[in-house]
Amino acid sequence: MAQASVKPIPILKDELDIVIPTIRNLDFLEMWRPFFEQYHLIIVQDGDPSKIIKVPQGFDYELYNRNDINRILGPKSSCISFKDSACRCFGYMVSKKKYIYTIDDDCFVAKDPSGKSINALEQHIKNLLSPSTPFFFNTLYDPYTEGADFVRGYPFSLREGAPTAVSHGLWLNIPDYDAPTQLVKPRERNTRYVDAVLTIPKGTLFPMCGMNLGFNRELIGPAMYFGLMGDGQPIGRYDDMWAGWCVKVICDHLGYGVKTGLPYIWHSKASNPFVNLKKEYNGIFWQEEAIPFFQSVILPKECTNVQKCYIELSKQVKEKLGKVDPYFNKLADAMVTWIEAWDELNPSGANSDKLPNGPTK
Amino acid sequence: MAQASVKPIPILKDELDIVIPTIRNLDFLEMWRPFFEQYHLIIVQDGDPSKIIKVPQGFDYELYNRNDINRILGPKSSCISFKDSACRCFGYMVSKKKYIYTIDDDCFVAKDPSGKSINALEQHIKNLLSPSTPFFFNTLYDPYTEGADFVRGYPFSLREGAPTAVSHGLWLNIPDYDAPTQLVKPRERNTRYVDAVLTIPKGTLFPMCGMNLGFNRELIGPAMYFGLMGDGQPIGRYDDMWAGWCVKVICDHLGYGVKTGLPYIWHSKASNPFVNLKKEYNGIFWQEEAIPFFQSVILPKECTNVQKCYIELSKQVKEKLGKVDPYFNKLADAMVTWIEAWDELNPSGANSDKLPNGPTK
Repeated sequence: MAQASVKPIPILKDELDIVIPTIRNLDFLEMWRPFFEQYHLIIVQDGDPSKIIKVPQGFDYELYNRNDINRILGPKSSCISFKDSACRCFGYMVSKKKYIYTIDDDCFVAKDPSGKSINALEQHIKNLLSPSTPFFFNTLYDPYTEGADFVRGYPFSLREGAPTAVSHGLWLNIPDYDAPTQLVKPRERNTRYVDAVLTIPKGTLFPMCGMNLGFNRELIGPAMYFGLMGDGQPIGRYDDMWAGWCVKVICDHLGYGVKTGLPYIWHSKASNPFVNLKKEYNGIFWQEEAIPFFQSVILPKECTNVQKCYIELSKQVKEKLGKVDPYFNKLADAMVTWIEAWDELNPSGANSDKLPNGPTK
Repeated sequence: MAQASVKPIPILKDELDIVIPTIRNLDFLEMWRPFFEQYHLIIVQDGDPSKIIKVPQGFDYELYNRNDINRILGPKSSCISFKDSACRCFGYMVSKKKYIYTIDDDCFVAKDPSGKSINALEQHIKNLLSPSTPFFFNTLYDPYTEGADFVRGYPFSLREGAPTAVSHGLWLNIPDYDAPTQLVKPRERNTRYVDAVLTIPKGTLFPMCGMNLGFNRELIGPAMYFGLMGDGQPIGRYDDMWAGWCVKVICDHLGYGVKTGLPYIWHSKASNPFVNLKKEYNGIFWQEEAIPFFQSVILPKECTNVQKCYIELSKQVKEKLGKVDPYFNKLADAMVTWIEAWDELNPSGANSDKLPNGPTK
């Protein structure tokens, strides 16, 4: 019976940063101006730091290139990927805000079926401020949306829901396909506007895409590490997937919710499937081992905050995935470095404990 | 990359029965004539057997009233509810078809956002004939639908999916709310058309509504028991919920999928919330115990077919829920009687074993 949308949606101007990884001028921001201009942007420049990235006038931003990252993190900068949009997670670390919205620079404003431009950020805020329902499925989708509720048979004890940690938005036009699917279906476009937000149930993993993603940095920030990808690494295009697996397992343990669905953005440009295949092929093999691993991870109850969960996860990664490929040993070490760097830049939050919750065994 | 919808949707004329529980003349069928007329109907008349139920001309049907049920099942008829639409499950038992579609007599043809009448049965057939994805969540919903696929990061080993046992359709206009929600929101109508079908992940329970429901009788029929409700029982309006909890646990064990979403029907008339509250109030308490019970049920691997799973479940119900209320002991006994009656009417299927599958622990 709770209805978040009866209240006007707060803007969260002082509580939200927009993080954009890029290798090019940010002309795409022109289209987002009415929705983004009032927010602070954190731009993480990828690749050659001597290149000048142009940001359209009127935006409030800070920009970090590789030299900045090296200077700020020192030897710990090894945990931040280079020549891969995985570098974006540096932006999560330097932000001091409660919420993050991250978007790719080839994503534009989509229109809903009535032709109205979609304010993606507003919908993410709506998703993040209303609870999630990870413990039981509601067949009418998000029960906190206007015009919806919990259906008959939904336990009353679960209707308060759980705090929402992640809001995963979708894409019209170019769908987020892997290289093999891109190669097989080069012309497929996503035209289906599904007017729903739903909670991904506890215990279920999902492929988290970093293209159009909001999250509560206070609840889950330290787990939003996009791994080691790109330059010098045997893998790419698994940065957001890796973060998604880790985040979901930790949200399940700590009793937080993960939503997916609305809002849509317009994804303009498919990346090159041949280049993608080269980046992905190790990941395509490794995910067959990594996903069963994450499906069976159990975090002990001593893991009472995200950092502790993440360090524990890094140990289990080393132990169980290290034998799949030595890359996972390196990644496990980078996970620890990431947490050290996070705590260095965010000293106050490092010790805040959170008891595991959720009505489960 | 599999796309079920590239092929035309088969009609399954000889493989599907429509089951309708009713206490009144079936004028609602007029609206369904173009979609239902070619199928066989099994009408289960509820309440006074001397009352004549009128069926519009031109429909091929068989009608069972309470006298028929008593005659056919003898003492085992005690497992079939009286004065409650739970009696519909008798129709599942006497059918000899592979698929069942069941619909309430206050459900009419809905329109999609373009104004086109929705052929609900066609969508259920589509859902039942294409696989489900219970082991990993696909963010673009049903990957077997035209214009959709598995997204980046979806393990290739899971892309064949699992056989679909259940297709749970939704309702426009009057939502399926419990009595307290009906009382609080008497005027709420569901106007949100969500253009999606999705698989309810393995390990997640959901509130299954019997209003607009398709299933594969060969895969899951013996678990579609709607319990003891109505006349002489301390509970009503939990028939489909009970069936849904049992069905989901057994589908999870046997590696079958359960889908929810499209198709919509137009639900015309809210039942009386005061009457509903009287039927529901025990259920509202009991579900707080029953749902954690079902969430923790483990079926041993010896349970290799639906019947064995269901008998095992009845034992666990008696053991764990019997202490909540003696009603559950009676229900557990009725579950056994139901299986005995099922096997009596369906002798060939009684011993067909099915190995548990699904890529899980």
